[in-house]
Amino acid sequence: MIKTISLIGAGNLATRLGIALREEGLQITQVYSRTEESARELAEKLDCDAVWRLEDVTLDADLILFAVKDDALDSVLRQLPLYGKLIVHTAGSLPLSVLAPYSNRYGVFYPLQTFSKQREFEFIDIPICLEASDIESLDELDELAWSISEKVKEVNSEQRLGLHLAAVFVCNFVNHFYTLGAQIVEKLGFDFDLLKTLICETTDKIIEMKPFDAQTGPAKRFEETIINKHLDFLSDQPELKEIYRLVSKSIFEAHKPQLK
Amino acid sequence: MIKTISLIGAGNLATRLGIALREEGLQITQVYSRTEESARELAEKLDCDAVWRLEDVTLDADLILFAVKDDALDSVLRQLPLYGKLIVHTAGSLPLSVLAPYSNRYGVFYPLQTFSKQREFEFIDIPICLEASDIESLDELDELAWSISEKVKEVNSEQRLGLHLAAVFVCNFVNHFYTLGAQIVEKLGFDFDLLKTLICETTDKIIEMKPFDAQTGPAKRFEETIINKHLDFLSDQPELKEIYRLVSKSIFEAHKPQLK
Repeated sequence: MIKTISLIGAGNLATRLGIALREEGLQITQVYSRTEESARELAEKLDCDAVWRLEDVTLDADLILFAVKDDALDSVLRQLPLYGKLIVHTAGSLPLSVLAPYSNRYGVFYPLQTFSKQREFEFIDIPICLEASDIESLDELDELAWSISEKVKEVNSEQRLGLHLAAVFVCNFVNHFYTLGAQIVEKLGFDFDLLKTLICETTDKIIEMKPFDAQTGPAKRFEETIINKHLDFLSDQPELKEIYRLVSKSIFEAHKPQLK
Repeated sequence: MIKTISLIGAGNLATRLGIALREEGLQITQVYSRTEESARELAEKLDCDAVWRLEDVTLDADLILFAVKDDALDSVLRQLPLYGKLIVHTAGSLPLSVLAPYSNRYGVFYPLQTFSKQREFEFIDIPICLEASDIESLDELDELAWSISEKVKEVNSEQRLGLHLAAVFVCNFVNHFYTLGAQIVEKLGFDFDLLKTLICETTDKIIEMKPFDAQTGPAKRFEETIINKHLDFLSDQPELKEIYRLVSKSIFEAHKPQLK
């Protein structure tokens, strides 16, 4: 059973996950970050040691949890004597196999959520996707995951990549469209707040209905006159214009077979 | 003061608006729709007459409210003797001036919301954008709008077009990305529900934070390895791949000046 965790990374995910685990009685033994400042900042929240040199990382915890950027993971792994330790990464798009060269017990612990350092929330509803090198490691990670979430799933590397991609569409891309919407209304002299009722209703709808059935707007019905007015409005922003055109086309194509 | 309304149209917007106005004590005198079925369906909800031939439309109400498709509006207007009547349309992307040939008192009554026939909600938080040919008509529409909403704004035709465009991004396009996310996870054998915690958090975040500050994900940091894996995953869907590429680029370009 996992009781102690060494946390490698101090970003948004490491912060929220560390806090959630600690609240469930797990002990975080140490936080490592490349910079002293972030290591100290998170270590203070977790009441543990901060380290910012890899040679100071101690590996006497039951689990070594890596929450670093995908591109940084390999070089960090390479510098630590991990063999025999249970090690996990938390990345959506990295296969389990990236850990194979470094230990005989390894896994993936991927929470399907967007993390901000400054926002607190309950982990209970966040799906945690698990994968492991062996059944024993999987059982240990399973127990750990259920301690903070009610939505724990076994997900293989290919599926996890797909989930991450879906998350990019429904979270990162959606949020960017909120940014673009804000830019448009602010340029017109209005406050972004003006869009919030619409934004909330758009999300509320799909809690009850399938998003396909909730679709509205000019692209669905291919109302060319409206679409052309919007494209004209974007005439000095060719990249946005192209995004508008392509997404409208995608909506129309998806709904076309439904037209009578 | 407007007390009676003739409703031309029986779609999602006409339905929700008719119900909201009636609940505030306004009398809907008549519902017109091209099809007998939809006219009757809405007239029953509003306890009024249903008509489906333009020659049966009576114009003795204080306001003639048009909630028909943009492309249909002109031909409907042309067939009714409207001069001297207060007439309004409800379209985001049609200028006020389209009504000028048909009466001397006209306006726009545009609620910034996505409407589904089957979803009930309060109008109170929905921004209503008003424009009118003259101050007297504007005052009458203003009083009507405030009876159902706390967010009434005077908005000119150019601004309204921009608001409609912003609404397409934050509602129609966002909803389509929910559909694309659903397709991806369902193809992997999961339920769309798996994404709902993430979707709700994405929206909840921007109620508190600016969407620009809430941005997360591989595009913001231009994590090329992840982006390429996602593009590979979409290799048999060239149009989605192109959307992914363009939106990622737009996110990166927007956040680039912030990088240190």
